[in-house]
Amino acid sequence: MEVPKPKCLEHPINVPTKLLMGPGPVNMPLRVHNAMMKPMLGHLHPEFTQVMDEVKEGLKYIFQTTAEVVCCVSGTGHAGMEATMCNLLEPNDVILIAQNGIWGERAADMARRHDADVRLIKKPPGDVCSLNELESALLKHRPAVLFLVQGESSTGALQPLEGVGALCRKHGVLLAVDTVASLGGVPFFMDSWEIDVVYTGSQKVISAPPSVAPIAFNDRAMEKVRTRKTPIRSFYLDITWLANYWGCDGLPRKYHHTGPVSSVYALREALSMVSEEGLHALWSRHSSCAQRLYSGLEALGLRLFIADPAKRTPTVTTICIPEGVDWMKVPGGSKWWFGTYCGQSVENWPHGL
Amino acid sequence: MEVPKPKCLEHPINVPTKLLMGPGPVNMPLRVHNAMMKPMLGHLHPEFTQVMDEVKEGLKYIFQTTAEVVCCVSGTGHAGMEATMCNLLEPNDVILIAQNGIWGERAADMARRHDADVRLIKKPPGDVCSLNELESALLKHRPAVLFLVQGESSTGALQPLEGVGALCRKHGVLLAVDTVASLGGVPFFMDSWEIDVVYTGSQKVISAPPSVAPIAFNDRAMEKVRTRKTPIRSFYLDITWLANYWGCDGLPRKYHHTGPVSSVYALREALSMVSEEGLHALWSRHSSCAQRLYSGLEALGLRLFIADPAKRTPTVTTICIPEGVDWMKVPGGSKWWFGTYCGQSVENWPHGL
Repeated sequence: MEVPKPKCLEHPINVPTKLLMGPGPVNMPLRVHNAMMKPMLGHLHPEFTQVMDEVKEGLKYIFQTTAEVVCCVSGTGHAGMEATMCNLLEPNDVILIAQNGIWGERAADMARRHDADVRLIKKPPGDVCSLNELESALLKHRPAVLFLVQGESSTGALQPLEGVGALCRKHGVLLAVDTVASLGGVPFFMDSWEIDVVYTGSQKVISAPPSVAPIAFNDRAMEKVRTRKTPIRSFYLDITWLANYWGCDGLPRKYHHTGPVSSVYALREALSMVSEEGLHALWSRHSSCAQRLYSGLEALGLRLFIADPAKRTPTVTTICIPEGVDWMKVPGGSKWWFGTYCGQSVENWPHGL
Repeated sequence: MEVPKPKCLEHPINVPTKLLMGPGPVNMPLRVHNAMMKPMLGHLHPEFTQVMDEVKEGLKYIFQTTAEVVCCVSGTGHAGMEATMCNLLEPNDVILIAQNGIWGERAADMARRHDADVRLIKKPPGDVCSLNELESALLKHRPAVLFLVQGESSTGALQPLEGVGALCRKHGVLLAVDTVASLGGVPFFMDSWEIDVVYTGSQKVISAPPSVAPIAFNDRAMEKVRTRKTPIRSFYLDITWLANYWGCDGLPRKYHHTGPVSSVYALREALSMVSEEGLHALWSRHSSCAQRLYSGLEALGLRLFIADPAKRTPTVTTICIPEGVDWMKVPGGSKWWFGTYCGQSVENWPHGL
């Protein structure tokens, strides 16, 4: 062999046990781990499509929707964001993005790659948009799509969503929402809040491994997809193919791609735990844990980065690093993150936070 | 709750044990399952990037390359194909695709979505391209990229690759090869065969779960990426970002996306098993198993779909369904598949095979 066997694969894999408190993946319950021990199935075996159907029901519950197109992108949260952009946007479509942290920046990057006309509502880190601000921006920019992040994990901010859907319908705009860092930790009602597209990650509140991105498109969003003048640029993320593979379109399933079988087992188990606990209990648990954390931090003399409690997501808590403390040495390595993003240095972040 | 808890999540997950003999996912060794029981880590924890580094070494071995950019797309095999297309192609770039089954069709679909100028070399199912045919087509179409599938799992054909890289260099063409259904089962030498881009799946010979697509870009391919005039249309599949996240570019790792942590553990274990067995032994095992299967099928009076043994991939064996047998009832449900594609009906396939 020209390239020899690697020495590093001769020793056993080394994975220490860590308590994960950041907004990256979380520790998984044993039950979710155990689901991945289940035997492999073919990606179109009826026993596997049964598991997919159960996942869909769990997702309809956690998204609070009866939309038909509820499925998973076979990729992590960013793939959900990209699926949103590449399905909803055509070249020169105007998209309005609220930007108050990294996720708005990423969304803008993706939308530009799809040749959309990107308009921004910039807010300071930690702040969120009011309904009045959103309506003014809708009137000014006349977008086809409004994109909001419910839980901005880079700052800890929680964007209120009630009323935004009604504004969007009034102005003929589609509303797409990122709930990667928030879903399950705070109330979310896709249907009654009139949200057209939502996606999330599997590895946060849901507590499954990262590898699938649950996503839902309602009829308004699918109508936009069906009336596109240009092809969806991604085959892998094409929501019409995904909807068929996930049995959402009433047609026989076609082979689109090979689903991540073991990850779907894990997601199914995690969603059954969400369902057993119930959404109200899940939201309450996150809220009360956050309250205890706020109290404890304040008792230590630390100041929370977001002063207004109503603007905080209970899923990610941020503090101001006190004067004299080297923030590069604080877990999360940032000026205001607390326990976020898994210990990497802020220098490694592509944005200027 | 407007959407109640789903009843179907109240019962335990049902996953029967099956012996998987098709070219979908395969049964996994216990050791690979066990790797997914390891605790979750953050996607940028140093212990996790160590596992990623080990995966890279295993991939360099199985691809037989010393290329710098060897990593994984966080999606299944189709995501590897799409990453190849979206990184290498710009609008109006000519791509020449050998089409003798479903994979050439899929590649053409993806390339067209990227507004490439797609040219085809069509061959009958089960046949492959000779060097002369490829050179004539290169001269006729003057493509920027030639795309070949080594193991065409829809027909069982094995495309010979030796000499193709040299032709491509002679004519200034990049050579991209799909090895999803073949890698590890047949010889493959990225460097000495002068292949510029290769990708594979994790769930075939490697025997890990589906969810990551190993991929390698050599310097020629990266030069094409770096000199693009238009942005790569996908952020998630942008090879420059992926290369950075996988530590291939010598720069500090930035947060690109959340890698599928448990799946990467499993891939690491599966690659360590590949390395322990050794590529020569792995290729020999697949070859001798295929020979035994051919003999057994012929002893049953069945005729192999591909008459010329040199054109068969040992990883997928296809037979002609005898006269009088209802091929819809044969596993694989196709006119010539044997044990492929997991029992779904051929009607569900989007192509006319």
